[in-house]
Amino acid sequence: MQPEEELKAFGKSRGGGEGRGNGVLSEGDHGDSFLVPPPNFGMVDTGIYRSGFPTPANFRFLEELNLRSIVYLCPEPYPDDNMEFVRTHEIRMFHFGIEGSKEPSASISEDAIMGALRVLLDVRNHPILIHCKRGKHRTGCLVGCFRKLQNWCLQSVFEEYHRFAGIKFRLSDLSYIQKFGNSSMSVRVLSIMYRYGCGSQIRRLVYQDSSS
Amino acid sequence: MQPEEELKAFGKSRGGGEGRGNGVLSEGDHGDSFLVPPPNFGMVDTGIYRSGFPTPANFRFLEELNLRSIVYLCPEPYPDDNMEFVRTHEIRMFHFGIEGSKEPSASISEDAIMGALRVLLDVRNHPILIHCKRGKHRTGCLVGCFRKLQNWCLQSVFEEYHRFAGIKFRLSDLSYIQKFGNSSMSVRVLSIMYRYGCGSQIRRLVYQDSSS
Repeated sequence: MQPEEELKAFGKSRGGGEGRGNGVLSEGDHGDSFLVPPPNFGMVDTGIYRSGFPTPANFRFLEELNLRSIVYLCPEPYPDDNMEFVRTHEIRMFHFGIEGSKEPSASISEDAIMGALRVLLDVRNHPILIHCKRGKHRTGCLVGCFRKLQNWCLQSVFEEYHRFAGIKFRLSDLSYIQKFGNSSMSVRVLSIMYRYGCGSQIRRLVYQDSSS
Repeated sequence: MQPEEELKAFGKSRGGGEGRGNGVLSEGDHGDSFLVPPPNFGMVDTGIYRSGFPTPANFRFLEELNLRSIVYLCPEPYPDDNMEFVRTHEIRMFHFGIEGSKEPSASISEDAIMGALRVLLDVRNHPILIHCKRGKHRTGCLVGCFRKLQNWCLQSVFEEYHRFAGIKFRLSDLSYIQKFGNSSMSVRVLSIMYRYGCGSQIRRLVYQDSSS
């Protein structure tokens, strides 16, 4: 798609926006082989990225991140192309299969979230990419819980969740994030370890698994 | 505001979302003194953050970022509280006053954007925060131009712009980003310097001003 068409299509698909009617020029784009981040790509923190499901079109972009690990949050097996990419680049996969459901009653397993958080907090796994299918709900919940460990206020956690989920946001996810860690001692311990683990300016944890 | 009210208010203000009707528990939040990021806060890249206008409520959060510099994109003078914060923490201010206008004809000065990009690309200024008033339009344009230097495809640049601008997105901003650098030799040079400047895995530039 040409930039001009892309811009028009973008405006059309969004169906809103200010200052419409602006002339769109048709000059060509600069550069020649562009990097294509996965959908809903964002940086969570130093060494931590989030996104929707990467396809082969995104592999060149992902190579630039020098990923050491991926946290994959869907129950489905990883596609062959992605497995090949992961193998070739010696990326360590952490698979926590969480069902993607709109039903508020379908609760996200606390074990999965806690397991994913442990992986996420361990700087030895960085740079790390978290992804599910669309990078909205499961990824949004995990990042929301991570923000609670970082002691962000709830309103800001929700704002960030919404930025990625858009109109597809789910109150059940927000409720999950809200409740996360309220009554769990292990979460409090993780939170303290996050904050004081290294004793350095970079407050990041090399996680010591209590079972090891 | 209590978390329960916050969640309800959030749902109400968004007027949508899936899975409504989910019971919201009223357990208290964990922790005691939360960090409050500025509105529309996000991480652009390692050492580069973006946001809306920070208020004193955000200063504790900003302290955690150990900022070395701020790029401020509004023409208005910096408020006293913010100036005091910046002075106390020895943060270097880079002020590029860009008018915030809905008019498509009001073009953003290329000098301001180029100046801000030079500051942004220089790792000696990192960690750095870019902000305007709401972190949507001026900040969105600057980040969009930065993504073009990073060789992101236009569709992904637009997707990110929209994530922060939401329904307030402006086609004039998208058009600005689209056109940016198409015919400017200096942008091409910056782009090449970004990509090959350091010759290391971290492809970041210590900017050498040609006039110095």
